[in-house]
Amino acid sequence: MTHRLHLHPDRLFPAEPGTRAIARRLHAEVAGLPIISPHGHTDPAWFATDAAFADPAQLLIVPDHYVLRMLVSQGVPLDALGVPSRDGQPHERDPRVIWRRFADHYALFQGTPSRLWLDYVFAEVFGLEVRLEAATADLYYDRIAEALATPAFRPRALYARFNIEVIATTESPLDPLKHHAAIRASGWGGRVVTAYRPDPVVDPEASGFAANVERFCASAGEDPARWQGYLAAHRFHRARFRAAGATSTDHGHPSAATADLAAAEAEALFHRVRGDGATPAEAELFRAQMLTEMARMSLEDGMVMQLHPGVHRNHAPAIFARHGRDKGADIPVASEFVHALKPLLDAHGHDPRLTLILFTLDEDVYSRELAPLAGHYPALKLGPPWWFHDSPEGMRRFRERVTETAGFYNTVGFNDDTRAFLSIPARHDVARRMDCGFLARLVAEHRLDEDEAAALAHDLAYRLAKEAYKL
Amino acid sequence: MTHRLHLHPDRLFPAEPGTRAIARRLHAEVAGLPIISPHGHTDPAWFATDAAFADPAQLLIVPDHYVLRMLVSQGVPLDALGVPSRDGQPHERDPRVIWRRFADHYALFQGTPSRLWLDYVFAEVFGLEVRLEAATADLYYDRIAEALATPAFRPRALYARFNIEVIATTESPLDPLKHHAAIRASGWGGRVVTAYRPDPVVDPEASGFAANVERFCASAGEDPARWQGYLAAHRFHRARFRAAGATSTDHGHPSAATADLAAAEAEALFHRVRGDGATPAEAELFRAQMLTEMARMSLEDGMVMQLHPGVHRNHAPAIFARHGRDKGADIPVASEFVHALKPLLDAHGHDPRLTLILFTLDEDVYSRELAPLAGHYPALKLGPPWWFHDSPEGMRRFRERVTETAGFYNTVGFNDDTRAFLSIPARHDVARRMDCGFLARLVAEHRLDEDEAAALAHDLAYRLAKEAYKL
Amino acid sequence: MTHRLHLHPDRLFPAEPGTRAIARRLHAEVAGLPIISPHGHTDPAWFATDAAFADPAQLLIVPDHYVLRMLVSQGVPLDALGVPSRDGQPHERDPRVIWRRFADHYALFQGTPSRLWLDYVFAEVFGLEVRLEAATADLYYDRIAEALATPAFRPRALYARFNIEVIATTESPLDPLKHHAAIRASGWGGRVVTAYRPDPVVDPEASGFAANVERFCASAGEDPARWQGYLAAHRFHRARFRAAGATSTDHGHPSAATADLAAAEAEALFHRVRGDGATPAEAELFRAQMLTEMARMSLEDGMVMQLHPGVHRNHAPAIFARHGRDKGADIPVASEFVHALKPLLDAHGHDPRLTLILFTLDEDVYSRELAPLAGHYPALKLGPPWWFHDSPEGMRRFRERVTETAGFYNTVGFNDDTRAFLSIPARHDVARRMDCGFLARLVAEHRLDEDEAAALAHDLAYRLAKEAYKL
Repeated sequence: MTHRLHLHPDRLFPAEPGTRAIARRLHAEVAGLPIISPHGHTDPAWFATDAAFADPAQLLIVPDHYVLRMLVSQGVPLDALGVPSRDGQPHERDPRVIWRRFADHYALFQGTPSRLWLDYVFAEVFGLEVRLEAATADLYYDRIAEALATPAFRPRALYARFNIEVIATTESPLDPLKHHAAIRASGWGGRVVTAYRPDPVVDPEASGFAANVERFCASAGEDPARWQGYLAAHRFHRARFRAAGATSTDHGHPSAATADLAAAEAEALFHRVRGDGATPAEAELFRAQMLTEMARMSLEDGMVMQLHPGVHRNHAPAIFARHGRDKGADIPVASEFVHALKPLLDAHGHDPRLTLILFTLDEDVYSRELAPLAGHYPALKLGPPWWFHDSPEGMRRFRERVTETAGFYNTVGFNDDTRAFLSIPARHDVARRMDCGFLARLVAEHRLDEDEAAALAHDLAYRLAKEAYKL
Repeated sequence: MTHRLHLHPDRLFPAEPGTRAIARRLHAEVAGLPIISPHGHTDPAWFATDAAFADPAQLLIVPDHYVLRMLVSQGVPLDALGVPSRDGQPHERDPRVIWRRFADHYALFQGTPSRLWLDYVFAEVFGLEVRLEAATADLYYDRIAEALATPAFRPRALYARFNIEVIATTESPLDPLKHHAAIRASGWGGRVVTAYRPDPVVDPEASGFAANVERFCASAGEDPARWQGYLAAHRFHRARFRAAGATSTDHGHPSAATADLAAAEAEALFHRVRGDGATPAEAELFRAQMLTEMARMSLEDGMVMQLHPGVHRNHAPAIFARHGRDKGADIPVASEFVHALKPLLDAHGHDPRLTLILFTLDEDVYSRELAPLAGHYPALKLGPPWWFHDSPEGMRRFRERVTETAGFYNTVGFNDDTRAFLSIPARHDVARRMDCGFLARLVAEHRLDEDEAAALAHDLAYRLAKEAYKL
Repeated sequence: MTHRLHLHPDRLFPAEPGTRAIARRLHAEVAGLPIISPHGHTDPAWFATDAAFADPAQLLIVPDHYVLRMLVSQGVPLDALGVPSRDGQPHERDPRVIWRRFADHYALFQGTPSRLWLDYVFAEVFGLEVRLEAATADLYYDRIAEALATPAFRPRALYARFNIEVIATTESPLDPLKHHAAIRASGWGGRVVTAYRPDPVVDPEASGFAANVERFCASAGEDPARWQGYLAAHRFHRARFRAAGATSTDHGHPSAATADLAAAEAEALFHRVRGDGATPAEAELFRAQMLTEMARMSLEDGMVMQLHPGVHRNHAPAIFARHGRDKGADIPVASEFVHALKPLLDAHGHDPRLTLILFTLDEDVYSRELAPLAGHYPALKLGPPWWFHDSPEGMRRFRERVTETAGFYNTVGFNDDTRAFLSIPARHDVARRMDCGFLARLVAEHRLDEDEAAALAHDLAYRLAKEAYKL
């Protein structure tokens, strides 16, 4: 027996009929808005080459760390899911076998956002009408594989079908941005921009840091042995990224620490961390200093900063040793922003030229730290609930805890932050529905008038992201 | 086009019709109860002189740090809002211009408690029937200015109109309390009491601490060079405050740390912090010790203690340097109570003569620390959600997280904690509605009988505050 | 005037009628399932001797730390509630007087889970139809006392009436398990198993640790002076517990710290902590190391591990000195799992033979740490909301914060964790209703199909606990 797959038009709206009716009205006005995707990890090669996606497993399972982690947690090893090993140990190579394993365990995703996103992709993108389970695994596999072979499922066609207005990818300063160049040269009308993610040349604990800095400076014609040369190289590459459409920088630091050292101290610190001997405290201080340096460059070139702190990356060394990073073994840690951001904010927190968008995986700081900070400093804005909290309950908690202190206009609407291209409309769909549901509750409780809610729904779905990211 | 301003009779009640009907019934019984305002920051001069308030901007915008911070966060500088600079730089002096700026940005407050309070003041106190926005700014300004010129809008008339039974202000031990004396001497029937806030003579890091202690002891006829003289000065001033109606003390410390040093150690510490050389650790320890000393004096004189810890005051040094304190740049930090309060609780936590009311800006401690502590120690009670959390969602989270462990009777009902006099009825209105809504949910879910909820609604709106603060 | 006591069939279900109807349907299918009670603190002597319970006060008040703490918090001393003093000071001995005191204060429990549990016991177990209050205290006392004298209220009869399939008690390795032997020898059909709680011989800060280790090793025929002898004694006693039905070990540590020292270091540490001179850091490290040793033994013998960290036991020294432990003066503290568990997880986190069930009193870690950890590591599962959070709101927060990242299948359903035998059905009733209400909301919001919710309701009420604990 199979089960019906149906995307209910009222999904995610509050159940109370009066509130639901308001949510429906609000959502009807924003459901069709174009997608602004100002921060994510899609591969620009997709849009440059417009090649067909490989197969259902390689598209939807193998690269999705949300999916991998849940299956691993229930005893399905990464090898069995087609994830290659660094040491060349065998891994499953048959995409249909991988797909069946996934289908067998699909019930694990009940109650998770992955289930919402995947069902949306199955129903909306591929037109499937039965639920994924063991009995329908092959039906799914064949239907999706068949679709992927057609022109309508090429990246550019999907970009158009998804009604994307602009999408940002994220690249290292070491990246030549050739795919972005190819996209521009192709004459295609899609707007794919990059974002400047300097972690590999800013984090002394990043793999290959010293060599990265060498290449980074060399490609900019700067001397990597000089602090001023290193800073100039940032300016060079930031300009290069801006020429490839970038309007933002992104910083994935272990903590939100910032520093504002005197010039001589900063220079001395640079020399200490350039070698191999940087202590963890020096590495942390250098990252902290570099956030403030990046802020200063943003005053000059207008790039919006994004800060994504607070993850213990690669928590499981066995997984990392065998399969590498981004395999679902990253775990959030407690974060602190009030003291951490103070050096940067003391220097530039009231400068109207700066926008620093904050993300967190520690929901405790929403009401205690982030909303009060964003509710005072003109430079600060709050990014949407991130990663594990990019979910219905996560969005609800974010709005409930942030809005009363920071309002709506110190937040930046929604961004999807994903490499799973096909899930992008699903993620925006969830966000729009949850925001409309939250607004509907305020209206139903007479805390907001419906005309205000309607304007806010539009802003949260479209305008705020576009404006905050200067897109 | 203007929009209607309407305080819906069901505002803030749960939307589900059955639950809303219960909330309505509960609220009908408490809506008209007198206001007990046991902790706040209104100016006793208002009640002493009964002078008319200056103008709409000086009444409702310039002193309201909630309003200032939101406007600052969206790029409106404090100068433009009429906030004077310490250095005499120019600031906007035209109240109508300030008011228009505020009206232009009024949409920023959507979803915040400021919006609820202000709309209540506009509709209930001033009888306005259209929404504040750019188009209605002058209408508002004129209507409010006109009203303020009439006797009905003088402080004593509003006190009566607001149905206030008693209101507490907060003064430093250095304050001569002459306004309170004038109020008593005037024969007016209002009850305005003071509260003893010794921070300026208890916190070695307070501005002018050493001089404060000198004055404090001198005015009590005590020797500031002696620890016993300093303690005796506290007894003197506490008695003086009690004579001005005070039933409580209030302590605004950076943390909840308490200490119970041996007498000789405490004395030695006093001598170390009296000079300028106190280290931060010594200052913290002295504040900690003084909380226990204050508790001991409360055993003698019956004053209820209030502890308001956990704020990083004046987080933005540029704002502080230019405009001073209380301008919306205070940011909460993580707080800890279990270890912090132990020295005081070990000494006096089970003494039936002590009441220590705890407040926090760190909601994480509600269920983890505060409810378990208040659910055991007879001396501890929980104050209502404070400052940023004096809001509908803040109140909901407080009751949801605290009640199951501490019950209702280890909380003290509501206090408004504001210097915005006109907003006091609005704040109690929000609290009464939210408590009735919470109780209504318990009734609707058959977790409480309606007769019990009705008694609780009355207690939360009136009796508990009156009893806990001994008013 | 008395008030009606009525357990409404819709209690604890969401008020919204559509959602409530779904909850009702889900609950109807699980309400009658047998109780799996895999972790608790009932006294095996009850089931061994099947003696009648003493009286209403000794059964329902004196041993219940939830009840004691609330009454103490409102000024009723433990002596007045019949709790003996260690120093032989007088305490109330008349059970009827104790019961009346409790009845006088029963309103304090409004809104708490104790009220729900007690009302369930009163109505369902004893058939009472009026509310407990001063006026009905004697009626209650007489009815309950009368019932307790009858065979139907003996432990084994209640075990059958409560539809318990299996119940686990918790014993120290020093316990000879004679009651469990007596139960097995009696031929009675109930299934009462033990659990291995080695805290007294694992925690160097436990009272009598050195002597405990001596006895522990001696009874196993091992040399307490040798690390390998000490470990072998654990193996001996674990086997002895398994023979008494144990399928799990339980660890009540101050923190979740784990360690994985080299063998020589572990041995040296053992010798340092065996004497009296262990520093707090050494004691913490030894407990940490022992969690990993226990995990290794679990790989061999299949025992499921439970970790219950994060309580400041006996926070009030005056209470402890006079009345001993477990009197309602235990207070939670902030907990950390990401770094704490890493040594154990690095070693065994992906071993399919290990199950480590995590509990916390710090709800902040639900979404930040526990759900991400359990959503990756095959060895980790999340226990239900514990102690203060074994409550309707606690359960709701748990599911809302955990499910989206960990799913349902990385949780283990419900366990009651109580010594209050009569409350066990009430606690499972609350959990089943709250889980059905949560699932109903997901269905009503079209986030889950009702057939899926029905299967989940069954799993959460019965199957997951049974499987996770290998019962």
